[in-house]
Amino acid sequence: MHTGYAMIVGAGSGTGAAVAKRLAAEGWPVVLTRRNAKALDALAAEIEAAGGRALAIAADASDAAEVSALFETASEHFGTPELVVFATAGFAMGPLVETEPSRLYELWQSSTLAGFLIAREAAKRMLPVGSGSLLFIGATASVIQSAGFSAFAAAKHGLRALAGSLAREVGPQGIHVAHLIIDGIIDVPRVHEQMPEMAATRGEQGLIQPEHIAETLLCLHRQPKDAWTFELDLRPANEPW
Amino acid sequence: MHTGYAMIVGAGSGTGAAVAKRLAAEGWPVVLTRRNAKALDALAAEIEAAGGRALAIAADASDAAEVSALFETASEHFGTPELVVFATAGFAMGPLVETEPSRLYELWQSSTLAGFLIAREAAKRMLPVGSGSLLFIGATASVIQSAGFSAFAAAKHGLRALAGSLAREVGPQGIHVAHLIIDGIIDVPRVHEQMPEMAATRGEQGLIQPEHIAETLLCLHRQPKDAWTFELDLRPANEPW
Amino acid sequence: MHTGYAMIVGAGSGTGAAVAKRLAAEGWPVVLTRRNAKALDALAAEIEAAGGRALAIAADASDAAEVSALFETASEHFGTPELVVFATAGFAMGPLVETEPSRLYELWQSSTLAGFLIAREAAKRMLPVGSGSLLFIGATASVIQSAGFSAFAAAKHGLRALAGSLAREVGPQGIHVAHLIIDGIIDVPRVHEQMPEMAATRGEQGLIQPEHIAETLLCLHRQPKDAWTFELDLRPANEPW
Amino acid sequence: MHTGYAMIVGAGSGTGAAVAKRLAAEGWPVVLTRRNAKALDALAAEIEAAGGRALAIAADASDAAEVSALFETASEHFGTPELVVFATAGFAMGPLVETEPSRLYELWQSSTLAGFLIAREAAKRMLPVGSGSLLFIGATASVIQSAGFSAFAAAKHGLRALAGSLAREVGPQGIHVAHLIIDGIIDVPRVHEQMPEMAATRGEQGLIQPEHIAETLLCLHRQPKDAWTFELDLRPANEPW
Repeated sequence: MHTGYAMIVGAGSGTGAAVAKRLAAEGWPVVLTRRNAKALDALAAEIEAAGGRALAIAADASDAAEVSALFETASEHFGTPELVVFATAGFAMGPLVETEPSRLYELWQSSTLAGFLIAREAAKRMLPVGSGSLLFIGATASVIQSAGFSAFAAAKHGLRALAGSLAREVGPQGIHVAHLIIDGIIDVPRVHEQMPEMAATRGEQGLIQPEHIAETLLCLHRQPKDAWTFELDLRPANEPW
Repeated sequence: MHTGYAMIVGAGSGTGAAVAKRLAAEGWPVVLTRRNAKALDALAAEIEAAGGRALAIAADASDAAEVSALFETASEHFGTPELVVFATAGFAMGPLVETEPSRLYELWQSSTLAGFLIAREAAKRMLPVGSGSLLFIGATASVIQSAGFSAFAAAKHGLRALAGSLAREVGPQGIHVAHLIIDGIIDVPRVHEQMPEMAATRGEQGLIQPEHIAETLLCLHRQPKDAWTFELDLRPANEPW
Repeated sequence: MHTGYAMIVGAGSGTGAAVAKRLAAEGWPVVLTRRNAKALDALAAEIEAAGGRALAIAADASDAAEVSALFETASEHFGTPELVVFATAGFAMGPLVETEPSRLYELWQSSTLAGFLIAREAAKRMLPVGSGSLLFIGATASVIQSAGFSAFAAAKHGLRALAGSLAREVGPQGIHVAHLIIDGIIDVPRVHEQMPEMAATRGEQGLIQPEHIAETLLCLHRQPKDAWTFELDLRPANEPW
Repeated sequence: MHTGYAMIVGAGSGTGAAVAKRLAAEGWPVVLTRRNAKALDALAAEIEAAGGRALAIAADASDAAEVSALFETASEHFGTPELVVFATAGFAMGPLVETEPSRLYELWQSSTLAGFLIAREAAKRMLPVGSGSLLFIGATASVIQSAGFSAFAAAKHGLRALAGSLAREVGPQGIHVAHLIIDGIIDVPRVHEQMPEMAATRGEQGLIQPEHIAETLLCLHRQPKDAWTFELDLRPANEPW
């Protein structure tokens, strides 16, 4: 059914894991990647226990050589990348005047640079086939600037700039690039651990379910070539915006 | 299965008709409306011949009394509006200095005013239920200004402003408002009649298929309350942008 | 020094009056217009008492014939319009579902339609000369949508769409069109009368002085043809945004 | 007259040099900085020959220690930074799939990181005084994505994100942060050398004069605290956009 594979970059986070499980349940061979091998193996095991096919490859997405090797290994197993989801985490806030340049660099590295390297390797393999989807997960800070978010916004604006430029570059050659603006809090364990009161006041529909992000990603991937979306936002009904 | 009905405003245009047929095929009772009764009846007949349920109600969407009566009649037949798609046509171009104020008014009337009246009546009926989707079809000119498009852009920017304001107003009460930016040429008969050469050079995937707009509308309507999209764009892979 | 005249549309409001006085002080013959003749005459008298030249012409800027006559009269007195500032007031808020269509119409009329008519007549007279500035005063709602502002935002988004389209249409022919986004509260008597507590808490630099809007308008008008601004925002240092 | 000094970061480029000369002519002590000491010295000599005060300090704006030392030296000579203009050059284009990560990094470094370091040191010194302007020069690619511009757009979007976040962070404390979108080709010697035909077809008003950018920067710096602009665009009258 699927001629190629799906790759989830940042497969350990709530969103990445949910997307991986959803895609595997739809019959996709999924390649899971992130830096931490242990978390990856648990997810791969869970997917395989449920009857899916999963390949866990620990890699640093901000290292060109590791990203290249990642796609090499993935392609040896499953063929061509058909759907690549870029869902790395990384977050920081604080006044710009108190921010260390190393913090600015780390966020750029895990968001803009990693997004670039993944996009480059994925596009190289999708272009000869003339099809494939490259979906980037962004945040409110991808389009909004606000006090205390300078380093995070710089990294996310940078990633969006890459996505939008690449969409125009490879779209006419059949590669669908899209960018999601997640404008709300995703319901991952970390939120309940670190901000239990906030999570409680949000109510049951006030936190975005990772499964529902996966659902929208599938809608995007399934769009035919005459009707592609580049960008959409996603937020809970009761989110102030 | 469906507790309420779907209404297509502008059901005569290619997009509206395709959406209506798609929704009817999914089991929705569909209310079809536009000014011209004759075109409506043909569409309703086609839908019923295919086993669907359709109600054709000719109405001027820019007339408050007619819009109110439209929803009255629709609700008598099918209950509550669950999904309302605003897809009126209307287009004009030409230098601002040669544009008549009547042209500016007509476009405002068929786009901004009609969108407002439909939204108001739909929201009034959806709010007590606490659910429902209100989906507006916009165009490139909803967000982009360009020479020769002043009157059209004014009307479309106005409609978008209404949609965005309403989304924030009724979203927390359970009503999903969304706005689509159709950034390309839709494959309707008119295009082939009036611009055959342009249509030919676009190629088979260079014109947006109305069915694919319908597909994306369904994706939006199906989004659960924790993960709503307000806005997305839609264009062919080879569209310059 | 000035080969033509300046026209202030909405000359009765705080902003319009301040702009008129500033321009007159710079040596411009100024044409003052608004619907209410009485307020206009007082302003014209004030300007002339200070040594300026002012012509008060009461007119409804949303009436095509009156706008045409306005420019005819102005041009008979002072030649060619060199700088036209569109600064009409008009404001409304309230839930969309409780808004009357007449309210939507009035705001569209005083903002979008009036802006169109003024722009059209001004451009017709500036184009043969190949120069002139057409400056539109917008608001936060020109670019931001928010709950309770649907009718106001629709009118202001519409005006901005006109301005942006016209800028691209007549810019290459030497007419400078610009749009100001006033993102804050202007320090006019009405604010102190209707919201004294709010005005007090803002502090001395928390309300925009109309004279400072005039200053920025002059900066825009003085820009040479190789370095034109279409759009800028203007807000107090302590304005939350 | 001036209680502090002006600093031009990127003082060797056409824009930076023009801004420096203009400010010096207005009586400002100007601090000139860029990596190449030789070009700096020539500019400083020119300014002093014309009766101005200039201090040339070669520094790498993307090195935290050098930027800190730069401000230390500048402040020893001239007191507090009152106006800092960030006008570094740096440009690249080419398909994303053929772009080296080192290119992405260099652009990020010279644009986003350097802007961050300059902003941080400037803000630290302006905050205790409660005043000062920090003006960033951006480009079309700061807000527009396009094929072939992924690396450049990422760096410029990143810089804009920093500027916008910082504006909200330090604006309420009296620091005016603004961002200019230069949407056109600046008339610098390089343009005539590398693209003589293009320069010729643009005509005399089709290339932005650096002096006119300086003029607009002065307009921004002179805005009082109740009426600040964060962002404006700047382009020739005949620029397609």
